[in-house]
Amino acid sequence: MIFNDSDTIVAPATAVGGALCVIRLSGKDAIAICDSIFQGRKPLNQAKTATLHYGNIMDGKEVVDDVVISLFRAPHSYTSEDTVEISAHGSRYIVNKIISLATSHGARLAEAGEFTRRAFLAGKMDLSQAEAVADIIASSSHSAHAIASTQMRGAYSGELQALREKLVKIASLLELELDFAEEDVEFADREELRHLLSIILDRVSSLSDSFSLGNALKEGVMVAIAGRPNVGKSTLLNRLAGEDRAMVSDIAGTTRDTIEITTNIDGVIYRFIDTAGLHSTDDQLEQMGIKRTEQALRKARIILWMQEAGDTESSFEGFTPTSDQTMLRIVNKIDLAGDISDDSAQECDIPTFYISAKSGKGVDTLIEEFKSLTNASAAYQGEVIVSSQRHYNALLQARAALKSALEAIDIGISGDLLSEDIRQIMYHVGTITGEITSSEILQSIFSQFCIGK
Amino acid sequence: MIFNDSDTIVAPATAVGGALCVIRLSGKDAIAICDSIFQGRKPLNQAKTATLHYGNIMDGKEVVDDVVISLFRAPHSYTSEDTVEISAHGSRYIVNKIISLATSHGARLAEAGEFTRRAFLAGKMDLSQAEAVADIIASSSHSAHAIASTQMRGAYSGELQALREKLVKIASLLELELDFAEEDVEFADREELRHLLSIILDRVSSLSDSFSLGNALKEGVMVAIAGRPNVGKSTLLNRLAGEDRAMVSDIAGTTRDTIEITTNIDGVIYRFIDTAGLHSTDDQLEQMGIKRTEQALRKARIILWMQEAGDTESSFEGFTPTSDQTMLRIVNKIDLAGDISDDSAQECDIPTFYISAKSGKGVDTLIEEFKSLTNASAAYQGEVIVSSQRHYNALLQARAALKSALEAIDIGISGDLLSEDIRQIMYHVGTITGEITSSEILQSIFSQFCIGK
Repeated sequence: MIFNDSDTIVAPATAVGGALCVIRLSGKDAIAICDSIFQGRKPLNQAKTATLHYGNIMDGKEVVDDVVISLFRAPHSYTSEDTVEISAHGSRYIVNKIISLATSHGARLAEAGEFTRRAFLAGKMDLSQAEAVADIIASSSHSAHAIASTQMRGAYSGELQALREKLVKIASLLELELDFAEEDVEFADREELRHLLSIILDRVSSLSDSFSLGNALKEGVMVAIAGRPNVGKSTLLNRLAGEDRAMVSDIAGTTRDTIEITTNIDGVIYRFIDTAGLHSTDDQLEQMGIKRTEQALRKARIILWMQEAGDTESSFEGFTPTSDQTMLRIVNKIDLAGDISDDSAQECDIPTFYISAKSGKGVDTLIEEFKSLTNASAAYQGEVIVSSQRHYNALLQARAALKSALEAIDIGISGDLLSEDIRQIMYHVGTITGEITSSEILQSIFSQFCIGK
Repeated sequence: MIFNDSDTIVAPATAVGGALCVIRLSGKDAIAICDSIFQGRKPLNQAKTATLHYGNIMDGKEVVDDVVISLFRAPHSYTSEDTVEISAHGSRYIVNKIISLATSHGARLAEAGEFTRRAFLAGKMDLSQAEAVADIIASSSHSAHAIASTQMRGAYSGELQALREKLVKIASLLELELDFAEEDVEFADREELRHLLSIILDRVSSLSDSFSLGNALKEGVMVAIAGRPNVGKSTLLNRLAGEDRAMVSDIAGTTRDTIEITTNIDGVIYRFIDTAGLHSTDDQLEQMGIKRTEQALRKARIILWMQEAGDTESSFEGFTPTSDQTMLRIVNKIDLAGDISDDSAQECDIPTFYISAKSGKGVDTLIEEFKSLTNASAAYQGEVIVSSQRHYNALLQARAALKSALEAIDIGISGDLLSEDIRQIMYHVGTITGEITSSEILQSIFSQFCIGK
């Protein structure tokens, strides 16, 4: 253990720089430590839980600040421990002073995520819920927030736990078979087991499949704008972003590096990436730009293959989208072209949008397509969507073990080998909720939190 | 009136970016508005003052966040109004969402300083105390905090109010004389009046005299390091700052612009300014630097006139310190000089310190001198020290009116003219505490606050 969980910990719980700042103390001595630096109408140790107390924080005889104290008695607090929150004036001097007074009276500075870690250890939330707290704080869009919020309220964990309990039951039956190995009995009905594993496999698969959307909603949906130089990629980017961020000129090769603009469309963050034009060049700087373009294309969820009206190329060279990626063909400068029915490439099987990036014509229709490709409504309706890379990896491993178990049943493998697969499934599902965990996992998860949470 | 003081106002009270963020609502509908977006164990309108409530902020059926609500019923709150503080997860999305929910249910966004303005209008604090709240939040050192803290707790206002009450009594006696003008009586004993005015003049003078120190402690004590090129000014700056901030070389004229370093020494902020060397030059950039040097010298509280051991100049040319300024002569490079008793200028009347900026020899003694020149102990002991330019201006005007009144008594001027002077004194003292005020003054004071305070 790196932390000592019986210490009383202290940290600022809010950022400093506003009118107020909240300093949080948690642990068995939280109330006593606060009483030794607080002068109110009565000592906090005589106060009831969920009450507010006005008074002064004192450094000996000197008043440090007048504050309001929120008192939470164990177990009625975030951490399940006695907790005191000191709401002080938001000056860095005052915050530092109060924290140093608390530490000189026996508290220690909290590590990142240590309050939430204590809530987890006290059983107030499982690991996936604890992780969702960090996602909630980091969320900057409706969709990212909705996914984290559903996860934090435990919808996720409830489902995984139910699946896991069914597995525990089967595993115990299989292990019972081992005790009677000589008698060659089957306590666990193989057909029932196959049926249950199939149901679990379906669910685990659909959860892991949701990661692609969940990750996009959490991190932002990456849309790469690619195509030959001077087809108007930067102009489209500016149009989508509603501001002149990308440098636009009519000299081919203006965009040497990838430019990213983040925009919130209907609660979803889109990360539009204007890439260097793909073409042969001897210019070293341009070559670097093209390399970056290729990287951006690999990471994108939506690829806009941009052409000018009248272009004859009928395929996008140099890149084949994966099954997770959608490619859209954008024919630009329709205001300059006479007749778009002329479009020689219109028979390719890539959905094509005719726009004028300069005038904005057709761009709304394109944005509607983005929205339907990134359907966030499931997230808003509280559906469980996986957005954590850690969970996704665990789900993939659980899926592999599920497939292996189903194959084992098919070939009539013995109970002891089968139960090994089942234990694998239980293990991987358990790491998500924290039923299976290690101090290294906890350390790596909570160190990504901010101090004070 | 620019604000409508009967509105219910909402604003984030802490900075966003930490684990938690507090959103504050104040006004007659604060509790009702919060009840319409909060789902807890019971409605807040049934709850007592100074209580905490756990529950969810709802946007229709969607949970926005789980929060803890602090409830303060009028008049037991900062503003004296019903006040609700919502402690939510510190995501910008959540904070914006809660504020927009509150405004859509009838609250409006608070202006800068509007919560404190309401506290002032409700008589919870006078104007000088309200101003101290902003100083408290801005304070970054022990001394700046101590001055603001004393002022916020009302020590200042109590004293000014007592002086003002004595004046009110005299003014009423003088005005009574006007009613009996034909009878030529003197209700106000002129000797008693002279005595009282002298006492007030003493106090107002000592308060206004404290501004020089108060301002220095609040803004930082400015110490300018001046002298010929290459005497080691940058080296001393780095020594004082304890880091290599200023560029040091042995080429004369390295420092072309003034460089400022802020350091906290024993609870006082010092702003050390390394200036361009004062010397004749044709180089335009250097000339600009010298101009800035002259500006820094005018603003400094302490001026270090730096020489090399062996220099024969016996006076610092080009600048005469004012009575508020202290000049110290620093003889540098004593490690290179053979014998400092050789110092040809040692008989000048400027206190001289012999140091080696490079080795640090003698620098501690110099720092002790800074401390004794900037005695912050009065501030720590709760003595009233004026640190506001607005108060200082009012005190200067009160002092002028006091002198004028004393002269008027000396030459036996009539009661009606004398009472005009007394009213002037009362007016200027009253503007400090806010007994005399206008919406323009309030506007200009509170607009300097942050939102949410």
